[in-house]
Amino acid sequence: MSDVSEHDAPTEDRRRSRGDASRARVLEHAAAIASADGLEGLTIGRLAGEAGVAKSNIQVLFGDKQSLQLATIDWVLQLVEAFNAPALAAATTPFERVRVMVDGWFAFVERRMLPGGCFMNGVSSEFRARPGPVRDRLAERRRAKRRRYVEALAAARDAGEIWPAIDVENLAFELLSYQALANVAFAIGDEAEFQRARSISARRLDEAKAG
Amino acid sequence: MSDVSEHDAPTEDRRRSRGDASRARVLEHAAAIASADGLEGLTIGRLAGEAGVAKSNIQVLFGDKQSLQLATIDWVLQLVEAFNAPALAAATTPFERVRVMVDGWFAFVERRMLPGGCFMNGVSSEFRARPGPVRDRLAERRRAKRRRYVEALAAARDAGEIWPAIDVENLAFELLSYQALANVAFAIGDEAEFQRARSISARRLDEAKAG
Repeated sequence: MSDVSEHDAPTEDRRRSRGDASRARVLEHAAAIASADGLEGLTIGRLAGEAGVAKSNIQVLFGDKQSLQLATIDWVLQLVEAFNAPALAAATTPFERVRVMVDGWFAFVERRMLPGGCFMNGVSSEFRARPGPVRDRLAERRRAKRRRYVEALAAARDAGEIWPAIDVENLAFELLSYQALANVAFAIGDEAEFQRARSISARRLDEAKAG
Repeated sequence: MSDVSEHDAPTEDRRRSRGDASRARVLEHAAAIASADGLEGLTIGRLAGEAGVAKSNIQVLFGDKQSLQLATIDWVLQLVEAFNAPALAAATTPFERVRVMVDGWFAFVERRMLPGGCFMNGVSSEFRARPGPVRDRLAERRRAKRRRYVEALAAARDAGEIWPAIDVENLAFELLSYQALANVAFAIGDEAEFQRARSISARRLDEAKAG
């Protein structure tokens, strides 16, 4: 390691970029494992086997199991954002953005971008009896998602695209409820209930639309 | 075992009743473990330790782990039914029955009748990547619950207590959605969201009420 120094930037950059690529490859596998079997099923040994990486390298990249779990949560949320980004960028009005967010959720689950469907809904239940940093991170990410929904709906209301009388907090809650049920339905193989969640979500938005 | 025969009914009855009491005691512990840590966390070894029963006895009473998981699912649903039974029996109209079903769900979770909240919502996610008899049983029980909600709402509509235009399938879906989100909120310690689910459920029923 003695050749790494401030004066040796190109080498360090290359090294960092190799490290980022390794991290990304490991996190892809971590997300798939945790999506299907939960964050507790994400052991360093299993991950090493599936990603084809030495256990010691995973420990160097991520530290302990809990740090790995937290990194996996953050990675999955980046994945979800990246999935929705093109359609969100193409949306021309605030209401259009809301539709894209809602449609994007169903598409993400249905296309099995992760084997276990919606990661956040799936793993939140897992931590019901496990207070600590992982549960705190999941709670924080859930609140952030709710805030994004409330803000997007408020922007649509302020733009006159949805009725001023609509309670955006409640509407956000309802849309997220349908996703929570849809995710369990998907988990358990109930396709009809998943599709009902999607069509009721679309209808709620149609009803809220002004004009 | 040679003393057990058709001609020896009192002894057999006593024996069976002792067996039932052991089963019940073990299942109480099984429900608590699975509610908090999932049905996969329900190992025969751990259960033996917590219930203070020999592993071999649990194997005699329940067979293998999968049979124990199925027995635990059925036990929990009996527990939920017993919890709601007095209020349901006291309900004087079909609409009143619906209210009792909805209020009873929130009360069951809030009073921590099981440490992990709503068992069905909690463990369904756990089996998202595990097809088989346990997932099938969970799916079947979820469908049965939905049917009970639809039938109770239809009875209230037929009695003229809710508006005839109400789509009872959709209303049942919505009420169950709020529970799905409330259960994740409860799991993760988000009390405000849990209470929002309860008040939105009550409001939905108020809006559906005829007259």
